Amino acid sequence: MEALLRQSRSMCPFLSKTSPATLRSLSTTAAGHDVSPGAGSMSNLQVLGRRCPIMGKALAVQSARSGNSALAGAFGGVRAYHSRVSRAKLHTTTSKEAQAIEIESLRAKQGPIPFPPGVQKPAAKPTHVAHPHDPQAKTFDYEGFYHNELDKKHKDKSYRYFNNINRMAKEFPRAHLASKEEKVTVWCSNDYLGMGRNPYVLKSMHETLDNYGAGAGGTRNISGHNQHAVALEDTIAKLHAKEAALVFSSCYVANDATLATLGSKLPNCVILSDSLNHASMIQGIRHSGAKKLVFKHNDLADLEAKLQSIPAEYPKIIAFESVYSMCGSIGPIEGICDLAEKYGAITFLDEVHAVGMYGPHGAGVAEHLDYESHKAGKPQGTVQDRVDIITGTLGKAYGCVGGYIAGTAKLVDTIRSLAPGFIFTTSLPPATMAGAKAAIEYQANYQGDRRLQQLHTRAVKDALSDKDIPVIPNPSHIVPLLVGDAEVAKKASDLLLEDWGIYVQAINYPTVPVGQERLRITPTPGHVREYRDHLVQAIDAVWKQLGIKRTSEWAAQGGFIGVGVEGKEVEQPLWTDEQLEVDTVLKELKAGQGAQDVLETILEIERKATAQAVAAAA
Amino acid sequence: MEALLRQSRSMCPFLSKTSPATLRSLSTTAAGHDVSPGAGSMSNLQVLGRRCPIMGKALAVQSARSGNSALAGAFGGVRAYHSRVSRAKLHTTTSKEAQAIEIESLRAKQGPIPFPPGVQKPAAKPTHVAHPHDPQAKTFDYEGFYHNELDKKHKDKSYRYFNNINRMAKEFPRAHLASKEEKVTVWCSNDYLGMGRNPYVLKSMHETLDNYGAGAGGTRNISGHNQHAVALEDTIAKLHAKEAALVFSSCYVANDATLATLGSKLPNCVILSDSLNHASMIQGIRHSGAKKLVFKHNDLADLEAKLQSIPAEYPKIIAFESVYSMCGSIGPIEGICDLAEKYGAITFLDEVHAVGMYGPHGAGVAEHLDYESHKAGKPQGTVQDRVDIITGTLGKAYGCVGGYIAGTAKLVDTIRSLAPGFIFTTSLPPATMAGAKAAIEYQANYQGDRRLQQLHTRAVKDALSDKDIPVIPNPSHIVPLLVGDAEVAKKASDLLLEDWGIYVQAINYPTVPVGQERLRITPTPGHVREYRDHLVQAIDAVWKQLGIKRTSEWAAQGGFIGVGVEGKEVEQPLWTDEQLEVDTVLKELKAGQGAQDVLETILEIERKATAQAVAAAA
Repeated sequence: MEALLRQSRSMCPFLSKTSPATLRSLSTTAAGHDVSPGAGSMSNLQVLGRRCPIMGKALAVQSARSGNSALAGAFGGVRAYHSRVSRAKLHTTTSKEAQAIEIESLRAKQGPIPFPPGVQKPAAKPTHVAHPHDPQAKTFDYEGFYHNELDKKHKDKSYRYFNNINRMAKEFPRAHLASKEEKVTVWCSNDYLGMGRNPYVLKSMHETLDNYGAGAGGTRNISGHNQHAVALEDTIAKLHAKEAALVFSSCYVANDATLATLGSKLPNCVILSDSLNHASMIQGIRHSGAKKLVFKHNDLADLEAKLQSIPAEYPKIIAFESVYSMCGSIGPIEGICDLAEKYGAITFLDEVHAVGMYGPHGAGVAEHLDYESHKAGKPQGTVQDRVDIITGTLGKAYGCVGGYIAGTAKLVDTIRSLAPGFIFTTSLPPATMAGAKAAIEYQANYQGDRRLQQLHTRAVKDALSDKDIPVIPNPSHIVPLLVGDAEVAKKASDLLLEDWGIYVQAINYPTVPVGQERLRITPTPGHVREYRDHLVQAIDAVWKQLGIKRTSEWAAQGGFIGVGVEGKEVEQPLWTDEQLEVDTVLKELKAGQGAQDVLETILEIERKATAQAVAAAA
Repeated sequence: MEALLRQSRSMCPFLSKTSPATLRSLSTTAAGHDVSPGAGSMSNLQVLGRRCPIMGKALAVQSARSGNSALAGAFGGVRAYHSRVSRAKLHTTTSKEAQAIEIESLRAKQGPIPFPPGVQKPAAKPTHVAHPHDPQAKTFDYEGFYHNELDKKHKDKSYRYFNNINRMAKEFPRAHLASKEEKVTVWCSNDYLGMGRNPYVLKSMHETLDNYGAGAGGTRNISGHNQHAVALEDTIAKLHAKEAALVFSSCYVANDATLATLGSKLPNCVILSDSLNHASMIQGIRHSGAKKLVFKHNDLADLEAKLQSIPAEYPKIIAFESVYSMCGSIGPIEGICDLAEKYGAITFLDEVHAVGMYGPHGAGVAEHLDYESHKAGKPQGTVQDRVDIITGTLGKAYGCVGGYIAGTAKLVDTIRSLAPGFIFTTSLPPATMAGAKAAIEYQANYQGDRRLQQLHTRAVKDALSDKDIPVIPNPSHIVPLLVGDAEVAKKASDLLLEDWGIYVQAINYPTVPVGQERLRITPTPGHVREYRDHLVQAIDAVWKQLGIKRTSEWAAQGGFIGVGVEGKEVEQPLWTDEQLEVDTVLKELKAGQGAQDVLETILEIERKATAQAVAAAA
C-alpha cells in the first residue's frame, strides 16, 4: 500500500502535493460548494476526481459501461465507479482545480442525504459538523498544518536546505560561504558564461545606477517605462530577429503570464505541453484554464497524434523548451515547427537555458540550427524565424535578472495590454535593464565565452566518463550525474562542499522524478584545468565513499535514463567541432597520441583570448 | 443593449475580459470538455456560468424553483434557466475558470444532440464543424485575433501608451523624456521617498556589484542563496517584528505565490477578499482554486456576515491591504484582526504602499496604529503583532525592486518549500538585495523623509482643494483627482506633459472602475514649493481647458466617491499633527494668519534636515 502510494505520488501532481490528512478530509467531507444542485452527497475528492482530465475520462467510461441513462448517469456512474475503486487508486489521478463556492448550499448539504440505490456509504463521515456559530467548534490549526507540511518534506527528503554561496565577482568561479574565509568553487551556477562579473556589464550598471537610481519607481504604465526598457526590448527583438519583445520580472513570470493570457483569451485554446516542461510553463497553462494535452518528451509522433485529435479551427499552442536544464536534452525545434504549420498551431519556445549559449549571436538553439545563415545576417526562413514566440532569461547566461518574450508586434502588444503579471508589477531597475542589454550585445559580438564553455563541458564530460562516473548523455552544456536517491544525492553534495570545497547542488524531487536524483554540473569559461582536475578527483572519491553506482553498474542492470544503455548511439554535441573551430586540430588528435594535452592547449588559447576580450571591454 | 453590455462589463471580470467574438463562439459551441457524461448539449458558456459563484447560485435557485428532482434537476434546471434569460444578462455574471479537456468526448459531442423538452435551440450553431484532418478546414487566425483584442482596447480607450520617463537620480524628482533635453517633473512615481537615489542605498549597491556581480546566478536552492538574501530577510523580519521573512522577485509574485499556495494546500480553505484588492491578490486567489468570498471594501459588517457563513473548522484567510493605492483609503486592520480571531481566520495584509511610509520604523500602517509602543520597541500585543502575514515591496518607498512576506517561521518555511513562484525562479541580484536592506535600515532609523512626504501631501491636497479641484478624500499619502472619463483623463495627462512639463499618468479602467478615471498624484520629500505651485497652476489650467468637473460641480450632483459629498465627516490624516511634530505650530496657525507661510517654514526646515541626512548617509 505504501509502495503504491509512493508510486502514485510520482505520477499524479495532485496526490504528490496533498497531505494524507488533506486527502482524508477531502474524502470524508461532503461537496457542498459544487454548483450543481443535483450533485448529492459526493465527497470533495469525488468532485475533484470528476474534474481531472485522466480520472474524469475513466469515470465517463465507467459510467457508460454501467448503463445509466445519459442524464441520470452523470453522477450515478461516478458514485458506482467510486464504490468499486480503492481510495488510493482514485487519488492517483485526481487533480486540484479552481472551484466556485456556494456557501448556502454547502451548509444545506451538511445534513443527512439519502444515498441512491447501489451506492455504498463512504467509509468515514465526519462525526461532528460544527455549526459556524458553535462556540465549542474547534477552529483550524494553521501552525499545526504548516508543521505537517514541513514534516512531510523532511520525511520524503525533499526538504531543501539552502547553501549560503557568495559568488565573488573578482575570483570567478569561486565563492565564499557565510564566512569570507571559507572559499569554495561553484560548479552549479547558471551564470554559465560569467557575465555577472563582466566589466562591460558592470560598467553599464554602475553608470546607470548613478544617473537613474536604484529602482524604476513604478509599473511600466505608471512612471516605470524608460529608455532602458525601450533599448533592452529593441535589443532582444533584434537578437531573435523578431518584430518586438517584452521584458518581465523574470522568465518564470514571462512564461506564466504569456501562457495564462493566451490560453485564457484564445477561444477554445488547447495547449500542447512537453512532459518535461519547466514549472513556469506548467503553472501558466494551469492558470490559463485552457485545455492541456501533455505530449511525451521530445516525441514528435506523440505530439502529432495529439494535434490530430484537435479540431483544425481551434487555436493551439505547442509549448516546449530548447535545452531542458535538468537532463540537458534538446527539443526537436524544426520538427515541432513542421507540425505546428501542418496543424495550424503556434509554437512557444522557452530558450531560457540556451540564450547566450548557442548560435552565432547567442540567440539560442533555434538560431544555432541555421548557424551559417544567421552568421551571414540572413534570418529569413530559418527555424528561429518560424518559431512564433521565444522566451528567454536575462538571469542565466546574461548574468543579470529578468525574463522576456519575443514575437510579432501584435502578439507582444496583446500580452503587454492584457497580462496582469506584466501590467501590475514594478519594472526592472534601469541598471538591471542596462546591464542585461550590455550582456546581450557583448555575447552577440563575441563567441569566445560560449565556445570555451562548450570546450570545458566536453572536457568535464570526458574526464568523468573516463572514471566510470554516470554522466547522463546529452548534446548540451549540462553535465548531469545520475545518483538515483534523494538522501545520497544530498549527502554527496554535502561531502563535496565540506571535504572538497566544491559546490554542486543536489537536484531532488520535485525538480526531477523520484529515482532520478542527480548532481547537476555546469562548467563555465572560468573552470580551467586545475578546477576540473580537482572536481573529477573529488567526484570519484565521493562516489567511492558513498558507494554510488558507476556507469558500468547501471549498464549491468540494462541502463537507466541513457546511462549505461548498450548500443545507444552517442548523441553528438550541438556545437560541432567545426563551429568550435577546433575540427582541424581534433582530427589530427584522433589519429595520434596526446589528445588530452592538445585539448588543454586549445583551452589555454581560448582562455587567453577570453581574458583579452574581457580586458578590452573594461 | 449596448449600454447594458457596457454596464455588465464593468461588473463582471469575465465579461470585461472576453471579446464579443469569443462570447459568440462560447455560446454556440457544445461543451465537450466537461467531464460529466450526462451534461448533454450545454454550450461552453453555460458550463462557465454554472461555475460562476454568482451565476451558479442564480442557476441553483432557478433550478429549485422549476421543480426538478434533485438528481435530474442539475442540468435540466440550468437549461430551463438559460432559455429564459437573455444572453447578455447571462454573460454579466459568468467567470472563466480552469477546465480539464476530454478531447474524445468533445469530438463525440459535436454531432447533433437532441434537445430536452422546453429547451430552445441556441440561436446560432456552427454551420460547419471541421474534421481535424479536413484539408479544407480553416485554421485559427492568430494575428487577426491579436488585432481584434488590441482594437477593442483602442475603442474602449483602455489601450495603454507608455510614456518614456527617465527619472534622474541627481535631479530628483525631475526626469527626462526620450530626449535628454526635454525635462519634466514626475508627480506619479511610487518611489515615494526618493530612496532610489539615496546615497546610502547607492553606495551599498555599487560595492555589492563590484564584489558579487550583476546577478545571483541561480534559484535560491541552486547557487542563488547568499548572505545578502539572509541579511535582507532578517532585516524584514525584524522590521515587522515577525519570526521570519521571504523575498520574491516582486510583491506581485509574493502575493500570487503565497495566496495560491495557502489556498490550494489548506483543506477546504475559504479566502475572504476585499473588493478593492490588488490584481496580484486576485490572481493568487484565483490560482489557488480555493473558495473565494469578496467582501465590500473596508466593510467589517459584510466581512463578519461572510465569516459567519463558513463552518468554524474550515481554514479561512482574510486578504486585504493597508493603503489602497488608487483611492488612498486605509483598511480597518484592527477590526479585521478582531474578526479573524473571533472566527478562527488568519489575516493576510498587503502593506505594499505603506512600508517605508508609516510607523516609527516605516513598517507600515499596522505599525503606525501603535506608534508609541513600536517607538518604544515594544511590539508585543500590537495590531502588527496580531497580523498573521504581512506582504510588502522593496520597489516603492524603498526605491529598489522585489517583494516579500513576513510571518511565523513555520508559515514562511512552508511557502519557501512549496510555492513554485518562489522555488523555480532566479534570486534577486545581490546588489538589489543589499540596496533594499540599506533602504529599510535607513528608513527605520530616520523619520524625516516620510514626515516631509506627509507634509507635502497635505500641502498639495490643500492647495488643490482651494482651487475646487476634486481631490478624492482619504487619510493617506495618495492624492487622487477625479476626472470620470478615460479619454479626458488621458488628454489631461498628455496636456500636463506636453504643455506644462509635468508627468502625472492617467489611471483608467481596468485599474479603476469605468466612470472613476483619475489622475493620481504622489508627492515626495523632493516636491518643494516651486514644484507644487507649478503643479497647482497647471492642474487648474488643464481642468479649465478640458472642462473637467470641479468639486462644487460634483457636489451639485450630490457628490461621487467621496468628492463633493455634503455633511461627510472629514477623514483625518493617519499621520497626526502630533506624530508629525508640528502640532504646536499648527495650533497657533489655526488662531492666526499666514497659515501657508508657516507651513512653508516647516517644510523648509524639514527639507534641510532631510538634505543633511542624505549627505550624512553618502
